[in-house]
Amino acid sequence: MEKTSPTAISQLALPERILLGPGPSLADPRVLQAMTTPLLGHLDPAFLGLMDRIQELLRYVFETSNRLTIPISGTGSAAMEAAVANMVEPGDKVLVCSNGYFSLRIAEMARRYGGDVLTITRPWGEVFTAEEVEAALQQHPAKVVAVVHAETSTGALQPLDDILRVVHQAGAYLIVDAVTSLGGLPVSVDLRKIDVCYSGAQKCLSAPPGVSPITFSPRAAEVLRERRTTVANWYLDCTLVEKYWGKERTYHHTAPISANYSLYEALSIVAEEGLEARWARHRRNAELLWQGLESLDLTLHVPIAYRLPTLTTVRVPDGIDETQLRMRLLNEYNIEIGGGLGELKGRVWRIGLMGYSSNPDNVDLLLSAFEKLLH
Amino acid sequence: MEKTSPTAISQLALPERILLGPGPSLADPRVLQAMTTPLLGHLDPAFLGLMDRIQELLRYVFETSNRLTIPISGTGSAAMEAAVANMVEPGDKVLVCSNGYFSLRIAEMARRYGGDVLTITRPWGEVFTAEEVEAALQQHPAKVVAVVHAETSTGALQPLDDILRVVHQAGAYLIVDAVTSLGGLPVSVDLRKIDVCYSGAQKCLSAPPGVSPITFSPRAAEVLRERRTTVANWYLDCTLVEKYWGKERTYHHTAPISANYSLYEALSIVAEEGLEARWARHRRNAELLWQGLESLDLTLHVPIAYRLPTLTTVRVPDGIDETQLRMRLLNEYNIEIGGGLGELKGRVWRIGLMGYSSNPDNVDLLLSAFEKLLH
Repeated sequence: MEKTSPTAISQLALPERILLGPGPSLADPRVLQAMTTPLLGHLDPAFLGLMDRIQELLRYVFETSNRLTIPISGTGSAAMEAAVANMVEPGDKVLVCSNGYFSLRIAEMARRYGGDVLTITRPWGEVFTAEEVEAALQQHPAKVVAVVHAETSTGALQPLDDILRVVHQAGAYLIVDAVTSLGGLPVSVDLRKIDVCYSGAQKCLSAPPGVSPITFSPRAAEVLRERRTTVANWYLDCTLVEKYWGKERTYHHTAPISANYSLYEALSIVAEEGLEARWARHRRNAELLWQGLESLDLTLHVPIAYRLPTLTTVRVPDGIDETQLRMRLLNEYNIEIGGGLGELKGRVWRIGLMGYSSNPDNVDLLLSAFEKLLH
Repeated sequence: MEKTSPTAISQLALPERILLGPGPSLADPRVLQAMTTPLLGHLDPAFLGLMDRIQELLRYVFETSNRLTIPISGTGSAAMEAAVANMVEPGDKVLVCSNGYFSLRIAEMARRYGGDVLTITRPWGEVFTAEEVEAALQQHPAKVVAVVHAETSTGALQPLDDILRVVHQAGAYLIVDAVTSLGGLPVSVDLRKIDVCYSGAQKCLSAPPGVSPITFSPRAAEVLRERRTTVANWYLDCTLVEKYWGKERTYHHTAPISANYSLYEALSIVAEEGLEARWARHRRNAELLWQGLESLDLTLHVPIAYRLPTLTTVRVPDGIDETQLRMRLLNEYNIEIGGGLGELKGRVWRIGLMGYSSNPDNVDLLLSAFEKLLH
């Protein structure tokens, strides 16, 4: 037992980084400032009013009118788990399209909630065709299909329209992981008729991690209400959570107040910029980055046809120490980028240009540093 | 689908409240300011260093040397669920000592994780004797017993020493909910040999809700490692989470960076004040409050022998509209207090004096407002 106070209490003296990794991205100073707003109680009418505004703004970025659109009180993986835990009952057949780290995580969660899981796989950096999903559904008539829209571990952008068509033809529900796309490129929940879609705060929305948007279509929300079994996960049980976010305002868990302030401010910034302008900015800066990397003779891992504008994977050239370069970028230039995960460990760097981090100056700084470190 | 930006983007213009309810308490301005620190990546060596400091400070406030002492990335109920989900396997016998709202929640969670749950009950505001727990354990030889140290819904302080003795004699593990005690009165995890103990950030530690301390004794941590089944809850699976907080630094989920900054600053303030001085301050201000309420002819719900210093329940006098008084306090005085829950709904007010909120000025303000509103 530690009886005395820890000595030498240090203040928060931390380096300032330029965050160009797989997330978190940099937060707008306005967003950080919003968190200095004094706390309110989670049932204060003034906070309840803010919750309404947050939901309205979330519907705007998801491009949806879904009533059940809320921030989950945890980071992106908690939103993923909310999607899985609420949609999957023990024994339900689940199909997971697995082409990266985060689809593996979805499959793992679905198994933990008792799902009968089939995964179909593609090499990391590739995407699925609707025909592959259709064939898998004939073999394994799943209730729930999960796919990652923007794979943060590979930089691949999964086309959704045709997959949604075959999933709906089979009478199944599609869960879409939009962690690295929401706010950076179109997700279009209503137009595409996505059933469940979730994201994180710390990617293209540029709020600190800690709250994570999720939306359920009316058809998916019906699944929650008609479950035969209770959701094993109490904290993420969306039929309970929605009673707090909905008209009833029934206390479930204490909302993370400051994180909701930051989300509100970040979403307000998205709305001020406008979704289409924001998508165009992400695309423009990604193209600058791609041109710059290719002019340094680097190879981009994902073909342009399905390359994400928000997260770029670039192959590590032969003879270069992947980790060492990343550490030098961090220590000498204060720039964070990511290394590869899983199949791509040691083989790629992951460069994020998301939200507040996505600007031409950051692209220039990174390219200039890369040039010095590589040559 | 909402196609245009929501108009009339408002800034965060929220009222400033004096938070004297069941939580959140007010955060020290230093704690709010800490959240303006620019974000770091969750694997940045500078952030990993901060994590070590946070763990050291958490061990100080828990009065423990437990290695597995971490902040859960969610609010207090997520820490409760982490305790239950990790300690209880399907079929395990669980005994819950139920004398308030939060013990009901523990029982509900234990059932969701497949526990064979027996609850013993006491009226809300009373506490359990060791003999009652011992008798229940003879009838229902539980692996895990859960008790609430400081019941936020009733204001009762559960003595722990004798219960720990009988629980350990029976070979069981005790989970202690210290949400409304940690940092405000002694919890003494090591001295008492508590097996699992959790709390929230937004009570006596006075950080915003969003991260929640938990600690497992080496004996309890062994239970996690020897489970026959996987923890159903992936996000809160502490054997995975501890690989990120431990030496391995293996990515599990993105830590809520800013919330950890706020927790660090709040814990530093606790350490600067010193635990014993902090406990004494909470006691002193609670006594001021109790004397003041009694001199207004109000009746305190819990006998002084087991009355919490951090949360006081006071009975609503006959003929007074409970809700109306609370709303007038909020709207005319900007003071938040809580109403009763469950058995005590409409019968008590709940007044919290926790962390930064616990000072004589706030006691005076509240008593003066009560006097005007009641007479």
